[in-house]
Amino acid sequence: MKKIFLFPFIISIIIAQTNFIQYVKPLTGTQRMGHTFPGATVPFGMVQLSPDTDTLLYEKDGKYQKEVYQYCAGYQYEDKTIVGFSHTHFSGTGHSDLGDFLIMPTTGPLQLNPGTADHPESGYRSSYSHSNEIAEPAYYKVKLDDNNITVELTATARVGFHQYTFPSADTAHIILDLMHGIYTSNEKNVWTFVRLENDTLVTGFRQTNGWARTRTVYFAMTFNRPIASYGHARYDQSVYRGFWRKFDVTKNFPEMAGKNIRACFNFAVNSNEKIKIKFALSSVSTEGATKNLITEIPDWDFERVKHESQALWNKELGTVEIESITQKDKETFYTSLYHAFLSPNIYMDVDGQYKGLDQNIHRAEGFTNYTTFSLWDTYRALHPLFNILQPKRNGDMIRSMLAHYDQSVHHMLPVWSHYSNENWCMIGYHSVSVIADAYIKGNLSYDAAKALNAMVTTANQRYYDGLEYYIPMGYIPEDKNSSSVSKTLEYAYDDWAIAQMAKKLGNEKVFAEFSNRSENFKNVFDPSIGFMRPKMSDGTFRKNFSTLETDGQGFIEGNSWNYTLYVPHNVPALIQLIGGNRRFSQYLDSLFTMHLPDEFFANNEDITREGIIGNYVHGNEPSHHVAYLYNWLGESWKTQERVRMIMDSKYSNTPDGLSGNDDCGQMSAWYIFSALGFYPVAPGSEQYSIGSPLVKSATIKLENGKTISIEAKNQSAKNVYVQKILLNGKEWKENYFIHSNIMNGANIVFEMGAKAKKK
Amino acid sequence: MKKIFLFPFIISIIIAQTNFIQYVKPLTGTQRMGHTFPGATVPFGMVQLSPDTDTLLYEKDGKYQKEVYQYCAGYQYEDKTIVGFSHTHFSGTGHSDLGDFLIMPTTGPLQLNPGTADHPESGYRSSYSHSNEIAEPAYYKVKLDDNNITVELTATARVGFHQYTFPSADTAHIILDLMHGIYTSNEKNVWTFVRLENDTLVTGFRQTNGWARTRTVYFAMTFNRPIASYGHARYDQSVYRGFWRKFDVTKNFPEMAGKNIRACFNFAVNSNEKIKIKFALSSVSTEGATKNLITEIPDWDFERVKHESQALWNKELGTVEIESITQKDKETFYTSLYHAFLSPNIYMDVDGQYKGLDQNIHRAEGFTNYTTFSLWDTYRALHPLFNILQPKRNGDMIRSMLAHYDQSVHHMLPVWSHYSNENWCMIGYHSVSVIADAYIKGNLSYDAAKALNAMVTTANQRYYDGLEYYIPMGYIPEDKNSSSVSKTLEYAYDDWAIAQMAKKLGNEKVFAEFSNRSENFKNVFDPSIGFMRPKMSDGTFRKNFSTLETDGQGFIEGNSWNYTLYVPHNVPALIQLIGGNRRFSQYLDSLFTMHLPDEFFANNEDITREGIIGNYVHGNEPSHHVAYLYNWLGESWKTQERVRMIMDSKYSNTPDGLSGNDDCGQMSAWYIFSALGFYPVAPGSEQYSIGSPLVKSATIKLENGKTISIEAKNQSAKNVYVQKILLNGKEWKENYFIHSNIMNGANIVFEMGAKAKKK
Repeated sequence: MKKIFLFPFIISIIIAQTNFIQYVKPLTGTQRMGHTFPGATVPFGMVQLSPDTDTLLYEKDGKYQKEVYQYCAGYQYEDKTIVGFSHTHFSGTGHSDLGDFLIMPTTGPLQLNPGTADHPESGYRSSYSHSNEIAEPAYYKVKLDDNNITVELTATARVGFHQYTFPSADTAHIILDLMHGIYTSNEKNVWTFVRLENDTLVTGFRQTNGWARTRTVYFAMTFNRPIASYGHARYDQSVYRGFWRKFDVTKNFPEMAGKNIRACFNFAVNSNEKIKIKFALSSVSTEGATKNLITEIPDWDFERVKHESQALWNKELGTVEIESITQKDKETFYTSLYHAFLSPNIYMDVDGQYKGLDQNIHRAEGFTNYTTFSLWDTYRALHPLFNILQPKRNGDMIRSMLAHYDQSVHHMLPVWSHYSNENWCMIGYHSVSVIADAYIKGNLSYDAAKALNAMVTTANQRYYDGLEYYIPMGYIPEDKNSSSVSKTLEYAYDDWAIAQMAKKLGNEKVFAEFSNRSENFKNVFDPSIGFMRPKMSDGTFRKNFSTLETDGQGFIEGNSWNYTLYVPHNVPALIQLIGGNRRFSQYLDSLFTMHLPDEFFANNEDITREGIIGNYVHGNEPSHHVAYLYNWLGESWKTQERVRMIMDSKYSNTPDGLSGNDDCGQMSAWYIFSALGFYPVAPGSEQYSIGSPLVKSATIKLENGKTISIEAKNQSAKNVYVQKILLNGKEWKENYFIHSNIMNGANIVFEMGAKAKKK
Repeated sequence: MKKIFLFPFIISIIIAQTNFIQYVKPLTGTQRMGHTFPGATVPFGMVQLSPDTDTLLYEKDGKYQKEVYQYCAGYQYEDKTIVGFSHTHFSGTGHSDLGDFLIMPTTGPLQLNPGTADHPESGYRSSYSHSNEIAEPAYYKVKLDDNNITVELTATARVGFHQYTFPSADTAHIILDLMHGIYTSNEKNVWTFVRLENDTLVTGFRQTNGWARTRTVYFAMTFNRPIASYGHARYDQSVYRGFWRKFDVTKNFPEMAGKNIRACFNFAVNSNEKIKIKFALSSVSTEGATKNLITEIPDWDFERVKHESQALWNKELGTVEIESITQKDKETFYTSLYHAFLSPNIYMDVDGQYKGLDQNIHRAEGFTNYTTFSLWDTYRALHPLFNILQPKRNGDMIRSMLAHYDQSVHHMLPVWSHYSNENWCMIGYHSVSVIADAYIKGNLSYDAAKALNAMVTTANQRYYDGLEYYIPMGYIPEDKNSSSVSKTLEYAYDDWAIAQMAKKLGNEKVFAEFSNRSENFKNVFDPSIGFMRPKMSDGTFRKNFSTLETDGQGFIEGNSWNYTLYVPHNVPALIQLIGGNRRFSQYLDSLFTMHLPDEFFANNEDITREGIIGNYVHGNEPSHHVAYLYNWLGESWKTQERVRMIMDSKYSNTPDGLSGNDDCGQMSAWYIFSALGFYPVAPGSEQYSIGSPLVKSATIKLENGKTISIEAKNQSAKNVYVQKILLNGKEWKENYFIHSNIMNGANIVFEMGAKAKKK
C-alpha cells in the first residue's frame, strides 16, 4: 500500500519541479505600454502567432493618428475585439512593423473587411472576452464570440499551428488578409503574391516598405482538409487587364497578386469539427517555407506540437529555478525570463538559408542565424544575461551580427536590424558592446581579431550619425547633429568596450585609440551647472537649455538629469565631474525623489508616468544602470533599497505589469539580473554590481554543466538590505561579482536584514 | 610575286564569304509599326542594349494617351532625341514591357529629369542625328549632339557594354534612371533597390508590375574608373524617416531604395577620355548578376567583345548563305534572319539558375532556359524555322516551356510568357503546336509521353478562356466568351497538333479525343453565308454580324474574311465547307483584291493599311498561311505570284521595312521561309507548302552537318512562276516538301519562268 501511494507522489513532485510554464503569464505587458504579445511562440522562434486586436490606423484631419504606437505588438488588453491572428510580432518594441499574414476564421455570410472595433459585426473581426482566453508559452486559446469559434494556437520555430473548432454546422471561411499589418501607415505593402498549389497548400509572399525598408516574407500554408472554394478581393488597381479579361480572377483562380489583397478559403464543416492550419514562414522563398512546413510539423497532431513546444519552454525556463517570497514574484520572474527568451529571433530556414542584408540568399554555416537586434536596448542587460544563461545562442547572435557586417554596404555592424534590413533606429553602435562583452566573458565563437576589425570599422564610418565630428572633435556639436550629448556619451562607452576587447587581444594601437575616445564624455560636461549639456561647434555650451526637458535639448529619450549619469565605464571619473561622493550621492537621491512634471516628457512616447520614480525613468533604458551607482559611493544600501523598490513597483505579473516597453527583453533582463542580486553596469567588464536579490533562492544551471546557487537567507519583503555575502562559503566583501569567478560554479549566500548595513 | 598577291586575295574571299553582318540593317522595322529595336545584342541574348527615344506617357484629359504602343521596343526612327540606353527590349511585340535600367551619359550641370522631346535641353536627353548613327548586329554607335558624347554599345548574352567618349574635359555624369521603363503606365515600378558595393561596382534590382505582373530584374554594373561622387533623387514618399534623420541619403549614401529613383554617378574626365560601363542582368539575384558580369566580360576590351559578339552573329547568320536578285533582297533576308534570332531569350545565369514561374529559383539542368514566348505569333513559322535552322535551341526552348508547365499553378504550358510570368496575351494554347511540330520533326529532347501529358492537361484546363464551353459543346458560345470564333478555330488546330503527336506516340485514346476536337472548326461555320460566324449558347448564329469588321464580331485581330480560312490542318474540309474548289478560289482571289475600307480596322492597332493587300492582312498573323492555300486547289501559280508580291511589297531593308509588328520574329520567319521557296502551313505536319523562292540560290548548313542547297534557275523579279522542281536531281511533282526528306541533305532546283505554269 505504501508503494502505491508513494509512486504518484514522486511523479507529482517531478511534475511540480519541471512545470515552469505555469508561472509564465504571457498577457503581462499587453496593457498600456509593455508592447508584448500574448500569442504562441517557441523560445527565440521565427513565428510569433498572436491575436491582433486592432492595428489599422485611422485618419483624422488628413493625418494619421498616433494610436498605432500602442499596437507595436498588435494586441491591447483593453480592446474588445480580435481582428485575427498574424504570424510575426515584435516583443516590446517602441516602433512598429511585422503583423504578417493575418488569418481569421468566420462563418456565415462572407465579410472580407475587418470592420471596426465599435461595430465588429461590420466585418470579419469578432468580440471576445478575457474570461475565454488562455495564454501560455507556446499556446493561446480564445473563443470568438461572434461566431462561437474556439481558436487554439501553437507554434514551432518556423511554423504556426492553428486549430479552429466550429461548434455549429455551416460554411466556414478562413480569411487570409494580406493587407493587414502593423505599422504607422496603411501604405506599407509593396507587393503580395499567393498561389493555390493544390487543394490544401497555399504559398506566397508579402513585400513591405515599413520600418524595414525592403522586406519580403514568404509563406506556405496548409489545411487539414481540401478547400471547397476560394477567392480574393483586390483593393488597388493594376494596369494590365490581361488576367481580368480572360478569367474571373476573384473566384477559384489559383494565382493572386497585387498590392492590397484579402483572400478567403471556404470549407463545409459539421458541428464541432476542426479546421487546422499549419502556416510556415521563410525569408528565402516559398520553397523554403514549404520545406520548413514539412520538416517541422509533418502531421496534424496539435496536442503533440503544443506539448513539445511547451517542453522547449520548460527546458529554457528551467535554466533558472527559483524560490520566491510571493507567487507574484515567482510569476513575474518566469514571465520576465519568458520575455527575455523571445528575441532575437531565429532567421533561417531548416536548411540554414536566409536572406541577407544585401538581399541575396546566404547559408549560415555552423551557426543559427538570428534577426531582430534592438541593440540600443539589449546591449545593456539582455545580451549580458545571455552570456550566463544562453552563451551558445549569444555566440550565434554575434555571428549573425558579423554576417550582417559582411553583407553591409556601409561596412557597419547592426544598429537596429530586423528581417534583412537595417532600420538605423536610435543611436550608438552598441553591437561593439555585445561583442566585447561576449569576448571578455569567453563566449565569442568567432575570430576575435576579425570581429575587432568590424567593430573598429563600424566606429570609424564617418558618415554615420555625427561621427564625422565626434572623431576629430571628441564630441558632436549640437548645431551639426541633434541629440548630440546622448550620442557623444554612448559612443564614449562603446569606444571603451572596443578598447577592452583590444586590450585582451593585445592590440595596443586600437586599445590606445579607443581608450582615448572613451574619455569623450568629459567634453560634454558643463561644470558650471554640473550636468551634461550640448556643446556647439565653437566650443561653447548651448545657451538655452533645460536639464528636465526630454526633447530638443541634445538628448534622446532621456533628459540631462538621467543622461548625465551615462558613463557606465568610468563611474569614478563621473563622480569627480559631478563634484565628489557627497554631491554625487545627493544627485542620485534627488533623481529618485524629485518631482518631474508631465510637461517635461508629454511629447515623448517612450517615457510615461508609470515608468517614473521621481525623475528616474525606469520605463526607458538610459538609466537602467543608475540604481547600482550608489555602490561606487560606499552606499550599497541605497542601491539595495532602490532596486527592490523598482522591482516591486515597476514590475508585476498582470497585463499592466510592465512600466514601459519591454524592448525585446531588456526591461525583463534588468528584472532577472536584479532579482538574482546583481547587474552588469558596464558590459565589456567582468563585473556585476551587487544589488539586493528578490529571490529566496535560485539555481542557475549553466550550459557548461556547472551550477550557480544563490540563497538569500532571512529573505522577506522588508529585509531588502544585504548584511553579508558568502561566496563559496567565504565572506565576499566586494560590492561586485566577477563573471569568471562564478561561471565555473558558485555558491552565493546573501544574508538579508531589515536594516541598512552602512559600512 | 604571284604568291604574295594570291594570299591576300584568298583572305579577301574568305572575309567576303563570312561577313554576313554587313547585310543586316537593325534599323529595319524601327519606323511605323515594326516595333524592332536598333541596339546591341547577341543571338537570343538576355541583354538587348538599345537606345530609347521616348517611352514616357503623357496624360491628357485624365487618360493616358495611346502613344506608348509605338514604343513597344523603345525606339521610333522619326524621333529627334534619345533619352538613354536601356538593357531589355522586346523585338516586334504588340504589347509593351521591359526597358530596364536606362543609362545616359551627360556633362555640365546635372539634370536628373529626362526632359521633353520638344525641349531636350530641359532634361538629360539629347538630340541626335541618323547621320551619326551606326546600327550593326551587336554594335550600336551614336553621337549625342547636346553634349557631343560618342556612345558605343555592344553586348554579350547577359552583359551590356557601354563605351562613352567625352570629347571635352568636364565633369561627366552617368545617369541611372530606375523610373524609366516601357509600359502603358508610368506606375509600373513596384520597388527598386541600389547598392554601391565599392567605388566601381553598383548592384540592385527593379521590381515591376507591368505586362508581367510580378517581375524582378537584378543588375550588377561596373565602371572602368572609380566613382568620384554620386547621389540620387526619389520621386515618391516613404513613411519611415529613419534614414533621412540620420543621413543625407541623397548624396554619397551607398544604399538607395524606393519606388521611383533616379541615380547619378559623377566622374572627372579629360578630353577624349572614355567611361566604360559593363552592365549585367540576372533573374536570380545581384550575386547572380555579378557572377554573370565577371564571367562574361572579365576585362575592359570593348573592341574584343564587339568582335566576338559580331562573330557569334556571323556564325548564326551564316547558317543560310544566299545569293539574291538584288542587294535589297539580300539585306532584307539577313535582316529577317537577324530578327528571327533575337528571341526567345536566354533566361538564366551563367551557373544555370533562373527565377521560375513560381518565383522560386530553379536550375536548368542540361538545357538553356529561355523566356519571351510570343506563342500566338511564333508557333506559325518561327519555331518551325528553328526546327530547320536551330533544332538544338528549339529543343531547349521547349524544355523551358515544359519547365514553365512544371512551375505553373494552373498546370498549363505557356500562352504568352516572359520573365517568370504568364501574361495570358492572345488566345489558344499554341505551345502544343510548337511541341508537336518538334516531335513530329524529331527535335524533341524531352520525354514525349510526359510532354503529351502536359499538352493534354493544358488543353483540358476548363477555367481557361472558354474551354468550359468548348470541351463539352465543341465551340465557344459568343454570349459566354468573346472572340469565340477565333478561339474555337485555333483550339481546333491546336487539338489536331496534339492528336498528331499522340498518333506518333501510339496513344490511341488521346489521338481519338483530340482528332475529334480538331473537327470543331465546322461548328462555327455558317453555310448560309459561307463564313465562320459566332454561334450562341442556343446553337443559333449571332444575328448582327459583319464579315469585314474586326472588333466585336467574335474574332480577334482579324475579321471573318481572314479567320474563315483558319483551318490549316484540314484545308480540304475547309474547301468543302466553302463550297468546293471554284468557290474557294474565288474567295481567295476576292480576299486579295477587294477593298477593305479603313473603318473596318480603324480601332485595331495590330492591323494597318501598310500591312494589307485587299482584305488580306499580312501585317498581322492570322492569315500568314493563306497565300499558300491555292496549292490545295491546283492553283500553285497563284500562291507563287502572291508570295512574291507579299515579299516585294510588305518587306524591305529600310526603317519602314516591316508592314506590321515583327512579333518576336514571326513576320521575319514568314519571309525567310517564303524567300527559300516553301512554308509550314500546318506545324505539326512534316509538309512544307511550296511557293516561289526569292533567292537565286541558298545553302542551308544544318546542325547535323548536312546541307540543303536551293537553286532558282532563271530567277528574276519577273520570273516568279515555278516551272519545274528537281529534288536531288529528280523531278519533284508535289507542291510540298517533306521535312524528313530534306533534313538529311537535299539539293533543290527550282526552274523559274515569267509565265504561270497552270497544270
